[in-house]
Amino acid sequence: MKELLDRLIEKNKPLTDKGQVASYIPALKKANPKDLGICILDIEGNLYCAGDYDRKFTMQSISKVMALILALMDNGERVFERVGMKPADYAFNSLYKLDLPHGDKPANPMINAGAIVTTSLIKGEGEEKFDRLLKLLREISSNQHIKYNEEVYLSEKATADKNRAIAYLLKNKGLLEGDVEEILNAYFKQCSIEVDCIDLARIGIFLASKGRPLGSDEKLVDEEIINTSLAIMTSCGMYDYSGEYLAQVGIPAKSGVAGGVLAVVPNRFGIGVYAPALDQYGNSLAGLELLKDLSKELKLSIFS
Amino acid sequence: MKELLDRLIEKNKPLTDKGQVASYIPALKKANPKDLGICILDIEGNLYCAGDYDRKFTMQSISKVMALILALMDNGERVFERVGMKPADYAFNSLYKLDLPHGDKPANPMINAGAIVTTSLIKGEGEEKFDRLLKLLREISSNQHIKYNEEVYLSEKATADKNRAIAYLLKNKGLLEGDVEEILNAYFKQCSIEVDCIDLARIGIFLASKGRPLGSDEKLVDEEIINTSLAIMTSCGMYDYSGEYLAQVGIPAKSGVAGGVLAVVPNRFGIGVYAPALDQYGNSLAGLELLKDLSKELKLSIFS
Amino acid sequence: MKELLDRLIEKNKPLTDKGQVASYIPALKKANPKDLGICILDIEGNLYCAGDYDRKFTMQSISKVMALILALMDNGERVFERVGMKPADYAFNSLYKLDLPHGDKPANPMINAGAIVTTSLIKGEGEEKFDRLLKLLREISSNQHIKYNEEVYLSEKATADKNRAIAYLLKNKGLLEGDVEEILNAYFKQCSIEVDCIDLARIGIFLASKGRPLGSDEKLVDEEIINTSLAIMTSCGMYDYSGEYLAQVGIPAKSGVAGGVLAVVPNRFGIGVYAPALDQYGNSLAGLELLKDLSKELKLSIFS
Amino acid sequence: MKELLDRLIEKNKPLTDKGQVASYIPALKKANPKDLGICILDIEGNLYCAGDYDRKFTMQSISKVMALILALMDNGERVFERVGMKPADYAFNSLYKLDLPHGDKPANPMINAGAIVTTSLIKGEGEEKFDRLLKLLREISSNQHIKYNEEVYLSEKATADKNRAIAYLLKNKGLLEGDVEEILNAYFKQCSIEVDCIDLARIGIFLASKGRPLGSDEKLVDEEIINTSLAIMTSCGMYDYSGEYLAQVGIPAKSGVAGGVLAVVPNRFGIGVYAPALDQYGNSLAGLELLKDLSKELKLSIFS
Repeated sequence: MKELLDRLIEKNKPLTDKGQVASYIPALKKANPKDLGICILDIEGNLYCAGDYDRKFTMQSISKVMALILALMDNGERVFERVGMKPADYAFNSLYKLDLPHGDKPANPMINAGAIVTTSLIKGEGEEKFDRLLKLLREISSNQHIKYNEEVYLSEKATADKNRAIAYLLKNKGLLEGDVEEILNAYFKQCSIEVDCIDLARIGIFLASKGRPLGSDEKLVDEEIINTSLAIMTSCGMYDYSGEYLAQVGIPAKSGVAGGVLAVVPNRFGIGVYAPALDQYGNSLAGLELLKDLSKELKLSIFS
Repeated sequence: MKELLDRLIEKNKPLTDKGQVASYIPALKKANPKDLGICILDIEGNLYCAGDYDRKFTMQSISKVMALILALMDNGERVFERVGMKPADYAFNSLYKLDLPHGDKPANPMINAGAIVTTSLIKGEGEEKFDRLLKLLREISSNQHIKYNEEVYLSEKATADKNRAIAYLLKNKGLLEGDVEEILNAYFKQCSIEVDCIDLARIGIFLASKGRPLGSDEKLVDEEIINTSLAIMTSCGMYDYSGEYLAQVGIPAKSGVAGGVLAVVPNRFGIGVYAPALDQYGNSLAGLELLKDLSKELKLSIFS
Repeated sequence: MKELLDRLIEKNKPLTDKGQVASYIPALKKANPKDLGICILDIEGNLYCAGDYDRKFTMQSISKVMALILALMDNGERVFERVGMKPADYAFNSLYKLDLPHGDKPANPMINAGAIVTTSLIKGEGEEKFDRLLKLLREISSNQHIKYNEEVYLSEKATADKNRAIAYLLKNKGLLEGDVEEILNAYFKQCSIEVDCIDLARIGIFLASKGRPLGSDEKLVDEEIINTSLAIMTSCGMYDYSGEYLAQVGIPAKSGVAGGVLAVVPNRFGIGVYAPALDQYGNSLAGLELLKDLSKELKLSIFS
Repeated sequence: MKELLDRLIEKNKPLTDKGQVASYIPALKKANPKDLGICILDIEGNLYCAGDYDRKFTMQSISKVMALILALMDNGERVFERVGMKPADYAFNSLYKLDLPHGDKPANPMINAGAIVTTSLIKGEGEEKFDRLLKLLREISSNQHIKYNEEVYLSEKATADKNRAIAYLLKNKGLLEGDVEEILNAYFKQCSIEVDCIDLARIGIFLASKGRPLGSDEKLVDEEIINTSLAIMTSCGMYDYSGEYLAQVGIPAKSGVAGGVLAVVPNRFGIGVYAPALDQYGNSLAGLELLKDLSKELKLSIFS
């Protein structure tokens, strides 16, 4: 396995030149566009890593999976009264659909509007929402050192006019309860949580094991919540490239604009990938190609 | 003329039952839905009033005409780099068009998004934008007592999630400079300026006289700015009912959700109408019918 | 007047280089892009012409005014149950609005979808719809020689997939009665009617005189229908450039993609302009600039 | 297994009352809304049937899977130059997205616009397109008796204004080659192919076996084409309910408005379901609930 990973890293490394590091906040621009790394954790606990797997990066949209899980734990199916499960055929930071004459709730929890809703549904006042999410994430990944990056958080917050517009529109539509700026703060913080490929692989194995962290017998989360989350990752995890990704790779996954990808092969593997140079959709360009090769070599597609 | 007005008031009074007073802020809900009043001022200075013409009400969207005029005085044609002159076929408080993949600037200065842009383009820091607009309005209407209604202003501000969403989206699109909340404050204050039908008739005669206040020889505003404003009122003044209104009434006009209508017959009349019960588009229901009758009786249509 | 026209033709002639002749059908591509001509007819019957005013060209969208008038004569206000009076902020040959979840009838009779509806509402079976329209047009313009151009008609018909899509969608929405291909034939024929600037000026004076052809005392058409048509030309006559045109020129008008413009100064002038090189909106580029200059020189704006 | 199926049929039978039989063509209205049947075929060839599994019904949208497979066999990945793989968040018979200023190809091959494109890409002139599709379907299902229903075909054809509008728009956009009416005929015929639950289960096992018909060692279709088709069924197979369906059932499937559902559990089962009473999305209401129960009982979700 290690050899395979090394080979695939080498093969896909040149693709890092074809993407572009996210530039909308200064802190993200500092990433090295040539980085490409991967970790695979199997269900027995064997870990295989290759390339620049030890870089730290912020979760960004990958944190939307955590917010969804926690919102479902706190509220059950009522979450879906305020956010849909429909793939969106528009950019992840759009809001126009919400404001159409026939528009209603955000399409799904993997676009910004939907994730702001799920974050708002996490129980707790003030800092509590974020603290509970961080606590859950530490348990899931068995890593008590995970924390958010203050610089990225402040940078997100300072350049957040679009997310602010989305949040006030959600408020106006009656889809958001509580103080808008407080909810946005929790949202920006969760986007700024810093992880590496090993952390993502551990989160992946937690999902692949139906809610059990690696090496634990205790179910932290109900299987039904895990399945719902995997289904939503499958149909909506790669922004408006989700359909093509499913056909080409076939592994439930969620990407973030910092270049991370969390991928899950049910009952088998948790995978963390990192390559900050992005494609036109905002997904890790070399990261997705790497997953594509891996899926073919190991027959990881859910259709195989 | 007085007789004609009395007759038309009487004829249209029953229509006040068919509309609904705006309810989105508590202060507006207090209006008496049965009110219907009108004042006509001719270019020689003769004033004719009938019905409930002496009620005070807030300008609301009628103030958009003032913001447009002042923005044009301050910036010239560059205003139209940030806001269009296109009639909008959607609700006045929409924002979805701005966020469409091919969207750009607000359609016109008579919808909220466009008016927030023109307000932002008025020169001045902090309170200065609003102070200058109020000063101009007092000169135009020869009424130094005009001021804004504090209760309505605070009420607008407290329930402004949609306008806040619009403003942050404009900021995100690079169409708004300066502090968002400061611009919104100026916008809410101008919406809250209190007038009566006589004031509106005087503003109307100022526009009908190509920029001269009643009884003055001095041009306060360039004729070109006045013509541009009248053209925009003509195609966009009645929200998404503007096309039908033009065919049926044919008088350049602008309505506000408090029930006021400012109407202008070039070179002849300034008209102020008030009837707070609104139709489905947010225009004064009985007020528009009154204008329709008046247009027919006096052949006031620009096509006559 | 003649001198003024000569001067303005000369001034605007260079602008013909900036536009592009319509190319979607071969027959239109043959036009000389350098042509620029104008005729003005005053209400006393004086005719002034300049430039390439004697070129023949097809009416194209200008014929939509005729179809609207005849549909209103045949059906009265019921026409507006199937087509709106709202300016459209999208391209004239769009159909997507009709198919939106909240979409209904075509925005107005000056876009293709709306004009196909008005044509369908003209009474008569088979060839009769078109024959009646041609007959009316000959009376209005006092020119019995007006006829349609067979080559252009066949060319329109052969390249009409978009209009065919529009018509079948209208049929599906219950907005079109009768045989789709038959209605389209009438529509293509009316677009192919051949006129020159003198014909347009005569049609203009008919509209400017509230329904009387030049030199006639007989009202061919009710004043109300004329006013409605002028209002719709004012707000919708220049495709999605109508708002800007109104502010800059201020004369009710309708353009066609062959380069013609029909303009109407109520109670004063009928104007025909021709310049086949078009701007990005599909309007005659030099033609509109010529009208703009003329409007300023003679104070023809409806706001003057 | 048989007992389980009987029990689930009984349990879900009452739900047939909650849906409505498709009524847009007379032939479909004749279906018995109370029908509910299922067949499951495992990869070893064991067949289990229950309820009204022997009713004949037309494939309707299920045939889109066949057209996609054949288009891919004939053209390879070039198919996706003309049709996307993106889930659509709008009704299956919409066309507005194609005509948006930024619109391009149909979202995916499971909506009408996309399926008309894939049908057009099947090689062959005149009747040949359909004949080849029928031949392939007979091989796949090992049933030489499958044929289309003439009455349904003529009924589809006679009420096809919307599909005709879609096809002419596709032609106008350069996405359709060949004669529009000829392509539509092939499309209507494939929609009218008559099958029963056993046929669907056989088609299902062919897909579950990566391209091998039941009991055959020969691969009729490349595994890559099968995987692509399953991925597209997964993200787009249930119209705009696809996202919710994936979360709740988790089995790649395609529904048709006649009430059929083709479902595929990779490497394990082919499933055919029939219940003509539809939900608001146009999917078999009781059929989907039946699949949901079955998925839970047998852990058939691709995430299990």
